Amino acid sequence: MALPRLLLLRALHRAAAAAAPAAPPAAPAAPDFNSFVTRTNTCGELRSAHVGQKVTLYGWVQYQRQGLFLVLRDFQGLTQVIIPQDEAHSQVKELLSSAPVESVVRVTGTVSPRPLGQQNPKMPTGDIEVKAETAEILNSCKKLPFEIKDFIKKSEALRMQYRYLDLRSARLQSNLRLRSRVVMRMRHYLCNLHGFVDVETPTLFKRTPGGAKEFLVPSREAGKFYSLPQSPQQFKQLLMVGGLDRYFQVARCYRDEGSRPDRQPEFTQIDIEMSFVDQAGIQRLIEGLLQHSWPEERGSIRTPFPSMTYEEALAEYGTDKPDTRFGMKIVDISDVLRGSNIHFVQNALSYPHGSVRAICIPQGVRYLTNKDLESLKESAKSQFNQEIMEIICRPDGSLKSLLTKFLGEKEQSELIQALNMQEDDVVLLAAGGHKQVCSALGALRLLSADLLEAAGLALRDPTAFHFLWVVDFPLFLPKAENPTELESAHHPFTAPHPSDASLLYSDPTKVRSQHYDLVLNGNEVGGGSIRIHSAEQQRFVLEKVLKEDSEVLSHLIEALEFGAPPHGGIALGLDRLISLIVDAPSIRDVIAFPKSFRGRDLMGNAPDYVTPEELEPYHIQVSWPLEEKEAKKN
Amino acid sequence: MALPRLLLLRALHRAAAAAAPAAPPAAPAAPDFNSFVTRTNTCGELRSAHVGQKVTLYGWVQYQRQGLFLVLRDFQGLTQVIIPQDEAHSQVKELLSSAPVESVVRVTGTVSPRPLGQQNPKMPTGDIEVKAETAEILNSCKKLPFEIKDFIKKSEALRMQYRYLDLRSARLQSNLRLRSRVVMRMRHYLCNLHGFVDVETPTLFKRTPGGAKEFLVPSREAGKFYSLPQSPQQFKQLLMVGGLDRYFQVARCYRDEGSRPDRQPEFTQIDIEMSFVDQAGIQRLIEGLLQHSWPEERGSIRTPFPSMTYEEALAEYGTDKPDTRFGMKIVDISDVLRGSNIHFVQNALSYPHGSVRAICIPQGVRYLTNKDLESLKESAKSQFNQEIMEIICRPDGSLKSLLTKFLGEKEQSELIQALNMQEDDVVLLAAGGHKQVCSALGALRLLSADLLEAAGLALRDPTAFHFLWVVDFPLFLPKAENPTELESAHHPFTAPHPSDASLLYSDPTKVRSQHYDLVLNGNEVGGGSIRIHSAEQQRFVLEKVLKEDSEVLSHLIEALEFGAPPHGGIALGLDRLISLIVDAPSIRDVIAFPKSFRGRDLMGNAPDYVTPEELEPYHIQVSWPLEEKEAKKN
Repeated sequence: MALPRLLLLRALHRAAAAAAPAAPPAAPAAPDFNSFVTRTNTCGELRSAHVGQKVTLYGWVQYQRQGLFLVLRDFQGLTQVIIPQDEAHSQVKELLSSAPVESVVRVTGTVSPRPLGQQNPKMPTGDIEVKAETAEILNSCKKLPFEIKDFIKKSEALRMQYRYLDLRSARLQSNLRLRSRVVMRMRHYLCNLHGFVDVETPTLFKRTPGGAKEFLVPSREAGKFYSLPQSPQQFKQLLMVGGLDRYFQVARCYRDEGSRPDRQPEFTQIDIEMSFVDQAGIQRLIEGLLQHSWPEERGSIRTPFPSMTYEEALAEYGTDKPDTRFGMKIVDISDVLRGSNIHFVQNALSYPHGSVRAICIPQGVRYLTNKDLESLKESAKSQFNQEIMEIICRPDGSLKSLLTKFLGEKEQSELIQALNMQEDDVVLLAAGGHKQVCSALGALRLLSADLLEAAGLALRDPTAFHFLWVVDFPLFLPKAENPTELESAHHPFTAPHPSDASLLYSDPTKVRSQHYDLVLNGNEVGGGSIRIHSAEQQRFVLEKVLKEDSEVLSHLIEALEFGAPPHGGIALGLDRLISLIVDAPSIRDVIAFPKSFRGRDLMGNAPDYVTPEELEPYHIQVSWPLEEKEAKKN
Repeated sequence: MALPRLLLLRALHRAAAAAAPAAPPAAPAAPDFNSFVTRTNTCGELRSAHVGQKVTLYGWVQYQRQGLFLVLRDFQGLTQVIIPQDEAHSQVKELLSSAPVESVVRVTGTVSPRPLGQQNPKMPTGDIEVKAETAEILNSCKKLPFEIKDFIKKSEALRMQYRYLDLRSARLQSNLRLRSRVVMRMRHYLCNLHGFVDVETPTLFKRTPGGAKEFLVPSREAGKFYSLPQSPQQFKQLLMVGGLDRYFQVARCYRDEGSRPDRQPEFTQIDIEMSFVDQAGIQRLIEGLLQHSWPEERGSIRTPFPSMTYEEALAEYGTDKPDTRFGMKIVDISDVLRGSNIHFVQNALSYPHGSVRAICIPQGVRYLTNKDLESLKESAKSQFNQEIMEIICRPDGSLKSLLTKFLGEKEQSELIQALNMQEDDVVLLAAGGHKQVCSALGALRLLSADLLEAAGLALRDPTAFHFLWVVDFPLFLPKAENPTELESAHHPFTAPHPSDASLLYSDPTKVRSQHYDLVLNGNEVGGGSIRIHSAEQQRFVLEKVLKEDSEVLSHLIEALEFGAPPHGGIALGLDRLISLIVDAPSIRDVIAFPKSFRGRDLMGNAPDYVTPEELEPYHIQVSWPLEEKEAKKN
């Protein structure tokens, strides 16, 4: 009697099952998920081979229909449970029919084949169902604040408040499990294959010079504070001085940047340091590490990764983290236009670092609207104070631009050749100082790519992973607030490039460093360097070049006088790396309990007020801002 | 010509080499320590089979004699390097002869067999030497503040200040490497064998109720503070609610206890939580975990571990963490003495929990001085306000004590039998309330054991590892400051023992918990429980039994209303566990950069003063204690 309805419901359910969490990919030897507990199987495990077995499953009610069947879910999958309809099992029927969605249930029953034609090939357990014999509601679920599925419309704030519910989604389950798996493989590679030692370093330390972004932790000694370090940099170098030889740590790091989109006040890095190593050694290590730990379901990656100097990256991509998944490189057309009679071009080229450059947007005429082009030009103007000229390639191959009247046929043809312009391409041209021109065009390159893709042109393969080393950074940069003074481009422990070592004393601005960045699809996912291991050189950099008080680093400098081995290392940003691997829009999608962009935990409501009594042992008091003080008075 | 001297020096050196760092024990597949670097071998690797090979070694100068040879050291061992004496290599000779001890050197040379009779069988590389051909001083070492060897007399404070030098000692190298290896195996067991997911939880959270020992971290919102949690307790429970099923983390935890010997403000625990598990499940998991990760060189451990109730532990060992490596159990002799006419015995037995108990110190007459016995009695008096009577067993088997005149022959013989007294044994007897008597005798049991061992009686096998589960703790204890109120014996999330669940509402003091402690050789190395997974029960415990404001835990209680699975877990104190495995006197010996017992980092000088400007973004100011304020004025 109920059968036709059941069939209908099964069809309905089949659609729901398609969005179910997939079974995790096979590991070298599959872990035993049923050890130490009384379940016989997970909800993703049963197949035709299990038919006839009596099983005990624990899971959440994903779906229940009319007291006929329900779908039980756990981290590994879904299993269809048939609710018994006979009088002898009326209690089981009553119980399972009344269990609200997302309640936790134990079901014991027998695995049966699904009736012919009712198998669900999209569901790993779709050939079977479990005929319930006994059942227990272990914890009932009240009305949910939102439905637990992958693409929910509810605000992220609400999902953060009920993070434990969002964690049940297939997306977050899969992200967190993949993260765990990748890190485990990294550990295996480092520890078991290459003799690295996992050493935990303190997170209660003291401020580093210029550590403006370090959280403070009041101590019980009046006026004295610990600081939560931004990285284990000092400790890992000291471990090398201590003869540890090869160190790694999956290190929790802290950075107080106030509100920043997609940054977290605490984050994790794969932190590595080696003695007696050079830049190439670290690069090969990391390539091997990523290849070894790369999840199969994301394809494989090829090594060695290509490498590019900072200068090349800036010249061709306008950034130190080029997205090399697509072309549209910046082209230097200074020589093509040098003879032209264009005033702004001539003006730009008259300066020492003057340059005329351009990018060519393929099929720009077809895929970009005039509004798009205007917004690109406006963005260059507002962000980089850079004027942009546009050149369009007409169907007949001729150029359309305000510039064409200044260009002879030869120059036009050279331009077309230099930029490899095709019919309907749009060229954006900029003239000015080298760095500004490149940066502006680099930004326009990315913006145009987004616009092209939004308009339907497939430009970047979403399954492609393009790793890239960027090397030969400058060691020092002029300070933004006072360009006559220098600051470290990365940090003061970075060693100068061996070829430039003598320049350190004569012209430090020209010194390249032994710093290297690892870039993935246009995102910086790691950075490191060979470190200074000479106390004299370290002191010179700190005192003479950076004009910093070296006293706070005296312990580190002194350590370099006691037989410090040459050493270098790297740190990979784990949150960002994993988010790129799983193609998540934010690092919050690969962190179990992330903070909001304001640094708040919306579930537990942290940070929170504390009483003055709780502050007493730490000898601190709150300096209430004036308006709050006033408000408190009233 | 130089040969006889060389022989002598070699003999000298042989003695030194005996104390050298031993090669690490063979791992399943030995890691490649020479990948990614230009050394061909470590200093612990070369054997006769390598003779004739040209090798490049990097290491520290352990020892150098008269320009004839030197011993190079790295993390894996020592290699003897022969300094060339011919004119063609005068530069190499000059360089190696002048390198101060602990300088870092690169040596390239050829592996040669040591001359007949000069092999050193105590040194893994003792069959060979390396004839240096080229060499380079990579970093010279200035005068050391102390010699780098295992048993140095220098104060711990000095060694902490130069921790990077102490880290070069064989002891610390071996401890840190063993720790890394054990943790790696634990991860393999949990992750790869049993499907646990390594999830990182936040360390910037908010105060938990009664979290008086939590460090505060000021945020940029005036008056609001994060807190560094003492454990990921709330998060791991929420992960279970989130369906993670099996969680683990090698978790950094924080506890601000001010100055406490052998505690650290930050410490590490192996943090575990499982859904659908019971107490026995967690116990089997942990037994398997320890067995799997146990280092071979420390023997093997047998499972399952014995188990004892809290009541039994208190009655027989006077503590909830019994050292079961030796006997001397507490014996209840109330019934033996019940008929006696001893006033303090009768007095004690007249109270409801009154008891007369004793321990028997084997060979106490021979190994303990009168002064020892006096100090034992004084300690019972001062620490527990407990009087102790002593009974000695004479060579003729008769008893000598102030009590004997009150005891008939039958009672004396029953006493001897109950305590299994032998010739020269000393019995310490206490009468009073059950808990006080047991606690006092438990403490005396440990003190006597120390005294006996100091006097030369082998009591505890230093290579033995006695694990023990202690179970059935009370769920609540009377508050020390107000015994009419109750507090959680462990924490408020602990579930009541299933047999006692109904007592929760009628007589909570009688409820046993599902808490379990793991004890190793008398030290608590782990603790956990099955948790409350019913919101109603959790609310009752917090509000009605503990009279606490449940508002701060509202997010956790609410989570229990949304389909929370039954769950439980445990945390192992990693620092303590490793220190027991390596038989280190302090957990500071298994931590790379420990704090002093005052919570200071003596190397980097943390915590440290910060400027008022640095406090400004956090809206706090220092409340200087009066005397310091005055001092600053003057």
